[in-house]
Amino acid sequence: MAELSRRRFLGSLAGAGVAGAGLAVAGTSIAAAAPAAPAAPVVAFQGEHQAGISTDVQNQLAFAAFDVTTPDRDDLVSMLQSWTTAAAAMAQGAPVPGSSATPDVPPADSGEADGLTPSRLTMTIGFGPSMFDDRFGLASRRPAALQPLPALPGELLDGSRSNGDIAVQACADDPQVAFHAIRSLARLGRGTVVNRWTQLGFGRTSTTGAGQSTPRNLMGFKDGTRNIRGDDTAALDQHVWVGNGADQAWMRGGTYLVARRIRMFVENWDRDYLSDQQEVFGRTKSAGAPLTGTAEFDTPDFGATGPDGTPVIADNAHIRLAAFENNNGLRILRRGYSFNDGIDPTTGDLEAGLFFISFQSDPATFVTLQRKLGSSDALNEYIQHVASGLFACPPGVTRNGDYWGSGLFEA
Amino acid sequence: MAELSRRRFLGSLAGAGVAGAGLAVAGTSIAAAAPAAPAAPVVAFQGEHQAGISTDVQNQLAFAAFDVTTPDRDDLVSMLQSWTTAAAAMAQGAPVPGSSATPDVPPADSGEADGLTPSRLTMTIGFGPSMFDDRFGLASRRPAALQPLPALPGELLDGSRSNGDIAVQACADDPQVAFHAIRSLARLGRGTVVNRWTQLGFGRTSTTGAGQSTPRNLMGFKDGTRNIRGDDTAALDQHVWVGNGADQAWMRGGTYLVARRIRMFVENWDRDYLSDQQEVFGRTKSAGAPLTGTAEFDTPDFGATGPDGTPVIADNAHIRLAAFENNNGLRILRRGYSFNDGIDPTTGDLEAGLFFISFQSDPATFVTLQRKLGSSDALNEYIQHVASGLFACPPGVTRNGDYWGSGLFEA
Repeated sequence: MAELSRRRFLGSLAGAGVAGAGLAVAGTSIAAAAPAAPAAPVVAFQGEHQAGISTDVQNQLAFAAFDVTTPDRDDLVSMLQSWTTAAAAMAQGAPVPGSSATPDVPPADSGEADGLTPSRLTMTIGFGPSMFDDRFGLASRRPAALQPLPALPGELLDGSRSNGDIAVQACADDPQVAFHAIRSLARLGRGTVVNRWTQLGFGRTSTTGAGQSTPRNLMGFKDGTRNIRGDDTAALDQHVWVGNGADQAWMRGGTYLVARRIRMFVENWDRDYLSDQQEVFGRTKSAGAPLTGTAEFDTPDFGATGPDGTPVIADNAHIRLAAFENNNGLRILRRGYSFNDGIDPTTGDLEAGLFFISFQSDPATFVTLQRKLGSSDALNEYIQHVASGLFACPPGVTRNGDYWGSGLFEA
Repeated sequence: MAELSRRRFLGSLAGAGVAGAGLAVAGTSIAAAAPAAPAAPVVAFQGEHQAGISTDVQNQLAFAAFDVTTPDRDDLVSMLQSWTTAAAAMAQGAPVPGSSATPDVPPADSGEADGLTPSRLTMTIGFGPSMFDDRFGLASRRPAALQPLPALPGELLDGSRSNGDIAVQACADDPQVAFHAIRSLARLGRGTVVNRWTQLGFGRTSTTGAGQSTPRNLMGFKDGTRNIRGDDTAALDQHVWVGNGADQAWMRGGTYLVARRIRMFVENWDRDYLSDQQEVFGRTKSAGAPLTGTAEFDTPDFGATGPDGTPVIADNAHIRLAAFENNNGLRILRRGYSFNDGIDPTTGDLEAGLFFISFQSDPATFVTLQRKLGSSDALNEYIQHVASGLFACPPGVTRNGDYWGSGLFEA
């Protein structure tokens, strides 16, 4: 991608050269080329909403879930304060605050991101249902919507990779920057939290940016064509951000994060015919067009039938079952990543798939969609949900001195 | 990195603008900025030596080891031929050859790299000692140097992540491109080989390119400062490529690949004082300078002593023990990557470290160095070698129709 952007950019300059124009024109040419160039490397940490949700999806993921081990609420708040300070610094490409040059203390920053760009790092925090038990006096602050996800069709969940008291999604265009973020929080949390599970993701499978091309998942299909865009304020307000009517004031401007580790049986998928693969998704593989259209962004025609009277987009096609038109307008913002965690030692098959992340103003939306998909989706022959988590993401930090989740902990 | 390159590039243009120069000067400025820009996205597949060894290190790794399951030598050769054809295509950014548009067959290419750039993909093959047993009539072709690595000090090896009949190192700047390469070979090999283990790496820890900055490992230190450079033909000939005097003609122009999965106990490391960390490596953390110098590429002065008469670079410092000056001139070409494979569920500690890869004309060089490092290196308090592999890499494919390892299999 970097090479391509630079090539385009050089191309635009060369064009200006042919026109015999001076530097002012070259300047114009630079501006014209800007939309195709990489986005700015810093994403603002502060804001009404947390970064990493409507932010254009970065290329790499490091996700961590933690369990709180301290019984002391003050320790927990103190850790969240230090996490917030560190996250704000790292988003700027700065090290974790504190001395990293004093000989007789451990360096405040572990150092592996030193010299790397900020790489659009975002860190997004969420609290799991288990945080609202009797340990920290938060039971009365629990949103009614924050219940453990119910059992869903077809899932086979590994508890050791599921749930957790706190989750942090770190996304960046450089994987070492994303890893550094998670490692730094784990380190700052030592004695207060313990890492429950982590997941690296290496290829985004969704896009939220109008200028981003739709990436392909490990089944080779474009995914996320109809995702909510990060600049679609109306859709975000309607489907993603918790509104002012929320039962818990601290969640206003927040959202709910659902994580699902979805194993793909890629070896089986790779033996399936192209025509069947396309029927499973309801899209063409190469262009990503709905089977009723010719281009990726054509609107699917779910009523279209073929010469024999059967639907062109099958009744159990993934895009039919997931489409908002067929789900009373329900939409979620997806932000998943591909993963590969080695092989299944019993078969030699790749332990690979999609680490699905979605954000929605009500977890019930995900549950409704997944009940339907989990029971009927033609994809189910090739996938299985193997881990799960639900986390309530508070709104963003809007001023220095504030911290992640302050609305939950402060009176 | 992409942002930085682009920023530098824009900066150089802005400088030309201040000078009031026309486009011809802007063009000069572009040329001057070129060395800092990303390398061309295609690495030639054919060559005297395999690509991926002296090639400037790419940002991402997907490594796979396979065991041969067929008893039939012809099947094995046929697979190597199909792998070679596929690897040559993928290096160009082309799909695995064959139809991916015929409805009633499985697509020849799985598709997840469709639309991505070639990303400097290289694939490098090697054969393990186990290939030279009595299955395929190769016993007489076994190089004397290709013996299983001896037990080495301090290691605690997981056999399920070690060794294998065949290994393939796929490196690329895009992780999905590297994954696609390994997945495609596994698919083509179905029925002939089974995946024994795989390893993803996300941050290069070495550099072989003169224009590449030295990256940091997960201990936050610059590693590979004194690595063999990819353009140092004399050093490559002396230390990396197997020469014409080899006992097995098929290995001339080849090399030996050693892979070591090195777990880093990063939580312990992070609690160590800066001064101690620097003494362990023998370098400063921030600049990467030897403790006897001020800049990264200063030559270490292993004879220097402090006011109290003790060596400035400690007797057990990593760079002292590894230096060619202290090992009769022995050198290896390193090409390792950082990894993080989740957490150790018993402790919550990060299962992270360095996937070490080295190339050398004789595996005995690695053994000699590691015997010394494994018994004396101050780093050993913070690391452990937990998996291992040795593979004989044949020379490169130099003409169409030839295949990986043809010299081994042909009379």
